[in-house]
Amino acid sequence: MASDGTEIRASSLGEFGLIERLARILDESAKDGDGVPGLVLDIGDDCAAIRRESLTDVYTTDTMVDGVHFRTGEISWRDLGWKSMAVNLSDVASMGARPVMSLVTLGLTGKESLSDLEELYRGIADITQELGGVVAGGDIVRSPVLFITVAMTGEAAVTAGGAAFNRARLMAGSMTGSTAGAGYPTAASQLKFEAGSKQAADGAALLRRDAMSVGDLIAVTGTIGDSGGGLRVLADGLSGTAADLLKRAHFRPVPRMAAGVALVTQGVVSAMDVSDGIADDLGKMCMASGVAAKVRMPAVPVSDELKACFPDDFTAIALAGGEDYELLFSAPEPVMAAVAPSIGVPVSVIGEVIEGEPGSVTVVDERGRPIEMAVGWDHLDG
Amino acid sequence: MASDGTEIRASSLGEFGLIERLARILDESAKDGDGVPGLVLDIGDDCAAIRRESLTDVYTTDTMVDGVHFRTGEISWRDLGWKSMAVNLSDVASMGARPVMSLVTLGLTGKESLSDLEELYRGIADITQELGGVVAGGDIVRSPVLFITVAMTGEAAVTAGGAAFNRARLMAGSMTGSTAGAGYPTAASQLKFEAGSKQAADGAALLRRDAMSVGDLIAVTGTIGDSGGGLRVLADGLSGTAADLLKRAHFRPVPRMAAGVALVTQGVVSAMDVSDGIADDLGKMCMASGVAAKVRMPAVPVSDELKACFPDDFTAIALAGGEDYELLFSAPEPVMAAVAPSIGVPVSVIGEVIEGEPGSVTVVDERGRPIEMAVGWDHLDG
Repeated sequence: MASDGTEIRASSLGEFGLIERLARILDESAKDGDGVPGLVLDIGDDCAAIRRESLTDVYTTDTMVDGVHFRTGEISWRDLGWKSMAVNLSDVASMGARPVMSLVTLGLTGKESLSDLEELYRGIADITQELGGVVAGGDIVRSPVLFITVAMTGEAAVTAGGAAFNRARLMAGSMTGSTAGAGYPTAASQLKFEAGSKQAADGAALLRRDAMSVGDLIAVTGTIGDSGGGLRVLADGLSGTAADLLKRAHFRPVPRMAAGVALVTQGVVSAMDVSDGIADDLGKMCMASGVAAKVRMPAVPVSDELKACFPDDFTAIALAGGEDYELLFSAPEPVMAAVAPSIGVPVSVIGEVIEGEPGSVTVVDERGRPIEMAVGWDHLDG
Repeated sequence: MASDGTEIRASSLGEFGLIERLARILDESAKDGDGVPGLVLDIGDDCAAIRRESLTDVYTTDTMVDGVHFRTGEISWRDLGWKSMAVNLSDVASMGARPVMSLVTLGLTGKESLSDLEELYRGIADITQELGGVVAGGDIVRSPVLFITVAMTGEAAVTAGGAAFNRARLMAGSMTGSTAGAGYPTAASQLKFEAGSKQAADGAALLRRDAMSVGDLIAVTGTIGDSGGGLRVLADGLSGTAADLLKRAHFRPVPRMAAGVALVTQGVVSAMDVSDGIADDLGKMCMASGVAAKVRMPAVPVSDELKACFPDDFTAIALAGGEDYELLFSAPEPVMAAVAPSIGVPVSVIGEVIEGEPGSVTVVDERGRPIEMAVGWDHLDG
C-alpha cells in the first residue's frame, strides 16, 4: 500500500523487531490510565498474565482473512485494525459484558510494509482507547495469506445482587433444561444451555441468545443495513456523501459497548449482535430459544443514506446485509418500555417473539404480507 | 487425506453444521468430571463465559499454518490437533500455571474432508483430556490456506501466601525497574517488566522470563533436540525405531504441565518453554533478565535415538532444533538441588547465569572451548 521510497518491508525486522515497532504504536497512543486493568505481564513472556477480580469472564475470538473478509487496497490499514477489534468488541457488548484485554495474532505473507502494519496498529489503538479491550499480547506467524485473529476477554458487568431481576426473569422464562453433559459443547448444548440454573448458580447476568420468551418484544439499536450497503457501494462504484457514510459503516463499525451494559443492567436477558444479517441472526436467537419471531419490515430502522443509494433494494440489504454490529434483543413489553429511551442509543421495536417452528422468522410488509427472504450468508461459503 | 468413497466435504455442512459435528467429537471423548471449570456458556453464544475464582489468569495464543508450521500429508490430522493444543499448553506450563480453557479458530480452504477435521478434533480431545485446557468455543472461517489458531487461558497455580518465597526471591534479584508505562507493551517492557513490584502487588507466583539472576544454575527437563531430529528424519527419509521416536517427538510433543506447577510451587521464579531452540530461547531469557549465560554442551541432555540417527549433527540439532516444549529454568543452587529430583521429570543442569552482555549465550564443549552456534530460526522467516 505505502508507496514512498523509504518503505521498510516488515519481514526484514524479524518477529521481535516487528513486535517492538508495533507495540510502540500502542504505547505512543496510550493516555494515562489506559491499559489492561490488573496487568501483571504483557507481551514478552510465554503468556500475558492478568489479575482478575470479576467472578465471570467472557471469551471470544474472530478472524479476518484477506480476500474473504476484507480486501487490502479496498479497506485502509487503519480501518482494518479498527474493524478486526470491533467485531470482537461487539461480541463482548452483546453479552452485556465489559472488554478486558485482547491477544492479536497476525498472519503475515512477508510482503507487508512496516508503515502499513503500523497503520493497522494505529487503528487498533484508536478503538481500544475509545472502547476498551487493549492488547496484552499475541503472536506473529508467516502465512501465504494475510489474516488477523483477535481473542478477547471481558467481564460480566452485573454480578450477584445486581442479577436478581435477571435470575427471576430467567427462571420464569420459557426455557427447558438441556441434556448438556459435563460442560462440554454438544449438539444439544449448542442450541440451548441450562440458562436458568447456570445463570443462577453463577450469579452473573449475561445477555444470552437462548433466553427469548414468547410474548417478548424484539428490538434493535441504531440502523440496519448500512454496512451491507457500504459493500454494495464498493461493488457498484457509487460515490457521494451518502455512499461515503455507508462505506464508513462497513469499514469502521462502532460496537454498542455502553448499550450492552445498559441493557443487562436494566434487566434484559437476551441479545446478540447483528453480524450475519438481522434475519439470519434473529433466526439463530429463535432457534437457541426454541421460539419463532415475526418482524414488521416497516419498523426495521433504515438510514436515509441507505434509502438514497438503494431506493429499490434497501429492504433486502437491511434484512440480509450483515456486519451491522448493532444489538438485537428481546424483552417483555414493560422492560422494553423502560429500556428503549434510556440506553443512550436509538432503539426500534421491530417485532415480537411468537410460538412456532423454532428458529423460524417471518418478515411482513406494511400490509402484513410475508416478504421472501434471502438466506443469510455462511462464513464457510461466503 | 481420507480416501474412502464416502468422504464428506466439510464445507458442505456449513459453519454451524460443522461446529456441531466437531463438538460431538469432544463430547463423545469426554469423561465424567471433564470440562471447563465454572463454564457458564460454551459455543453457541457470542462469547464463552466462565466463572473464574483465581485471582491471576494467564493468556496465550499460538497459530499453525499449513506449509509453514506443518504439512498436511506429513503430519496426521490427529497429531495436528494434538500439537496445535500442545504448543499453547506448553506456554501455560512454562508460566507455572494450570490450563483452564481454549478457543479454537479453524481457517479452512473448503477442501478439507469432514473425517479429517474430526480426526483433528480427536487429537484435540486426546490432549485436553490428558492435560487440560478443554475447548470452550472458537471460530471457523474460510481461508486460502489451512490454519489453526488456539487462544488459551490458564490460572496461576500459586497465589498469596504460597508466593512469599517467590516474592522475597524476586525482590532480592538482580532486576532493576523498567520505565514501562501504564501497563502498555513498550520496547522496554518487552524486555524487562517490573517483576518484583508487580509480582508482589499481584500475589501470584509465575515463572517469568525476566527473573534470572547471576549465579543461578540453568536446567532443562527431558531431552533436547528430539523434535528437531524428527524434522530431519522426515527431510532425510530415515526409518526405524529411533527415527520413529524422533518423529513422534516432533508430531506429538508432551508439554510439561505438572513440572511447571511443581517448579513454581517449590520456589523457582524463572522459566520458559523451549520452542525456538535451546540456544535461542536461553538468549531470550538472558536478554529479558539483563544477564548472560554459559552452557556446557556435554551437560545438555540428548537422547540415544538422536545420537543414533545423527551421530555427527546431534549437537547442532540439540542447540538449534526447536519445538522441544521442554522447560528451561534457572534457580539458585540450593533451590535447584531440592527441585531437580522432585518435579516428576528428568532435570539436567546445563550451565549457569553469569554477568555479561545481556542476552549473550556461550556454549562450551567438553574442554571448555566455545562452540560456534547456528542462529535460532525466526517465525517470520522460517
